[in-house]
Amino acid sequence: MTIVLCIDESYKGFMSEKKKIYKPSPVSGFPEWLPEVRIVEQQWLDHIRRVFESYGFCSIETPAVEELNVIGAKGEDVDKEIYVIERLHKDENDTKEARLALHFDQTVPFARYVAQHFNDLVFPFKRYQMQKVWRGERPQAGRMREFYQCDIDVINPDNLPIAFDAEMPAIIWEVLSSLPGMEGESIQIRVSNRKILLGLLDILKISDPVSVTRIIDKIDKIGSDEVMRLLENECGLPNETVQLILELAKIKATPQNFHGLLRDFIARNDVIARSDSDAAIQSFEEGITELQAVLDNLSHLPEGAVVADLSIVRGLDYYTGTVYETVFTEDPTYGSICSGGRYDDLAGSYINKHLPGVGISIGFSRLFDRLRVQGKLPVSRKCPTDVLIIPPREEADLPQMKQIETTLRGRGFNVEIAHGKKMNKQMAYAEKKGIPYVWFPEDGQVKNMSSGEQTSVDPASWSK
Amino acid sequence: MTIVLCIDESYKGFMSEKKKIYKPSPVSGFPEWLPEVRIVEQQWLDHIRRVFESYGFCSIETPAVEELNVIGAKGEDVDKEIYVIERLHKDENDTKEARLALHFDQTVPFARYVAQHFNDLVFPFKRYQMQKVWRGERPQAGRMREFYQCDIDVINPDNLPIAFDAEMPAIIWEVLSSLPGMEGESIQIRVSNRKILLGLLDILKISDPVSVTRIIDKIDKIGSDEVMRLLENECGLPNETVQLILELAKIKATPQNFHGLLRDFIARNDVIARSDSDAAIQSFEEGITELQAVLDNLSHLPEGAVVADLSIVRGLDYYTGTVYETVFTEDPTYGSICSGGRYDDLAGSYINKHLPGVGISIGFSRLFDRLRVQGKLPVSRKCPTDVLIIPPREEADLPQMKQIETTLRGRGFNVEIAHGKKMNKQMAYAEKKGIPYVWFPEDGQVKNMSSGEQTSVDPASWSK
Repeated sequence: MTIVLCIDESYKGFMSEKKKIYKPSPVSGFPEWLPEVRIVEQQWLDHIRRVFESYGFCSIETPAVEELNVIGAKGEDVDKEIYVIERLHKDENDTKEARLALHFDQTVPFARYVAQHFNDLVFPFKRYQMQKVWRGERPQAGRMREFYQCDIDVINPDNLPIAFDAEMPAIIWEVLSSLPGMEGESIQIRVSNRKILLGLLDILKISDPVSVTRIIDKIDKIGSDEVMRLLENECGLPNETVQLILELAKIKATPQNFHGLLRDFIARNDVIARSDSDAAIQSFEEGITELQAVLDNLSHLPEGAVVADLSIVRGLDYYTGTVYETVFTEDPTYGSICSGGRYDDLAGSYINKHLPGVGISIGFSRLFDRLRVQGKLPVSRKCPTDVLIIPPREEADLPQMKQIETTLRGRGFNVEIAHGKKMNKQMAYAEKKGIPYVWFPEDGQVKNMSSGEQTSVDPASWSK
Repeated sequence: MTIVLCIDESYKGFMSEKKKIYKPSPVSGFPEWLPEVRIVEQQWLDHIRRVFESYGFCSIETPAVEELNVIGAKGEDVDKEIYVIERLHKDENDTKEARLALHFDQTVPFARYVAQHFNDLVFPFKRYQMQKVWRGERPQAGRMREFYQCDIDVINPDNLPIAFDAEMPAIIWEVLSSLPGMEGESIQIRVSNRKILLGLLDILKISDPVSVTRIIDKIDKIGSDEVMRLLENECGLPNETVQLILELAKIKATPQNFHGLLRDFIARNDVIARSDSDAAIQSFEEGITELQAVLDNLSHLPEGAVVADLSIVRGLDYYTGTVYETVFTEDPTYGSICSGGRYDDLAGSYINKHLPGVGISIGFSRLFDRLRVQGKLPVSRKCPTDVLIIPPREEADLPQMKQIETTLRGRGFNVEIAHGKKMNKQMAYAEKKGIPYVWFPEDGQVKNMSSGEQTSVDPASWSK
């Protein structure tokens, strides 16, 4: 059967006008994948979801947009990247409504969600969220404006046990170490507790700890000599103080030797014992105790999977205790692919409750795209089909084939029927799409496309 | 362990300023669900995806945005609903780039995708797409501005066999009839072929077929008397012509009696045989042959699942042959929950190829929300957890419990460890979240929360 043009007059405009072609080109920063890559992306998303759920996290999904008033609460730095939306043909009614903006992360929407649905949630509330987020970055190679993030957070009114902080790296390790294509990658989760470094800065009576932590945050990128120079020149700190801060920031410990290294550090530097600030000492000691508790719960992970790294401060984020970063062990300058930490009060801007929490976020698209570009993803087939059924001739006895099709599909196989004239075209189709088996209903035979072997089979009992 | 406020000076602003509370409220048209509803939404999405893949459709995902030039090609009607995006703090560089808009359906992005990646795709290209789309509707109860659509389409250069048209209703029937919560619903897929009605209008030499089909499209809503009145008064058609058109439009046939009903109709009305327009006759006859081919392949579905309904024309959409609508049999006025059809040339605006295709789209959110509002969704648990492990006291011997946790998780169970002080609080947590089993590692016992039964168990062999 051939299809001819519909002669409907109403489509004259559409059908018979000389075609105007608007050739589309990719929009910078908004990637999309061919089906064979998308299959792997789905495997990744499925895997991450499965691990998150296996630890009892429930899914939530928030709208792509928030009110600008909600989303803009985070400050000038992020403002610049916010995309607002409005109707193409807006009118005076539009101005009566709140302005809407695309979310740039999942933390702000989560905080708003918890505040809004507070009375309907059960605490501790453990949720995961795997959605796209948008940032209005300048177009630039490798810079994404739309990307997936995969977040888990636990939140509880007033008090959240430190044991939740300890669970996060174990979950992330399980996710990252078993993603398809990540088998050959060596990654490391680096954990610290902001209270330690900030406690020390307070003990040292440093007046501008923000500048100091901002500089220390760059240690992986600029090296410790440059950090030292900046701390002396920009913060005006005496060399002795800088040495002490760097001695702490350079501590990298295993779960087993962390305790000893910290005790040695304290013993070597009696400025700590001599401090007259109880609050500073308390913060410093508390940070050590908390970090030790986190590390203790991670001793079952392989050697090198988790280290205490006291240079980790997570820049200007709002973390108040535990902080996490995750790097490729052989390429830490690529930056963190999974970060997070403990916050004292997540949803305080939206509800009059004290809601501490801890969370971690996988930079899904950044990680996925790195492996894609490096050719490390297990990309193979272009479709999910297991079996292509090829009728002896076009339109041949479809109801009879339906029996085979239904039986196979009922047994869990993905099945297509080939529609079209030529057998050789159908075989080429199966080959190009990577369909592993072709079924010939007339002969009752199936062909294994990779071995070429052809055998007589029964759809009720056949297996791959 | 208690967590105290971090005393970091840098967070003074954040921590100690008097809280400004911005109480968030829901944004009209952008729904979000509590975890217990979201679980069912995920079950639906998983189910639909599974069925689509079982027929060999591959997944693609396109960005949330398209260039306005691409998306705006569809005409004034849709224009009004388009959301454009722009950076909150745009500057002169922004104007150099193409304007971006959120997609309002998945057909336009699909057409653009096929044109853009034409050389990398294998044809016939069968894809499914399950994403959110956005429409800038006026805020109004039940009117959504963000919603999920679940689309399948098959596209092929130059020629696409009618057998693909016949597969669509079978897939949709399988999806809709087995969605969790849809068991009690009676639905009906209504199929027609535009060539039949348009062929007849051409035979009748009707000068403005668009107006006629637009009126007939409303027959379910306004009734056939009103349709008759409008055809006479607005289109100025003689009563005899209107009677003939309505006689055709009112034909509702089973796959079995369609052929007979059409032959009778032709026999009764010799205006058809007397027509001097070969093109009109060809369209009319071709439509009948194609629709018969579609129906023949659906005879295995339950009685009433699929009917030929010649009043279906799908308004002003660009369909050229087969058209589908799906309604609740007992409430057809709710409108179509799943629609689609055959188009002659999908991506013609973007590439100089002739690309016929056929597709159908499930109005996921509209369907889901109807069942949600009617209380028909199987909403039960608030989290995916199967087992909550409750330690004898807070922070007790975590490494030992880890053995149980790891064993159970390795066997496919979703497991949480309770962190916190009080046993009764943990039990209340399990109950509120609907966690079915609670594990006491000290006693080696597990409690079935619904029966209250408590038994001694081994994590390596325990089953629900």
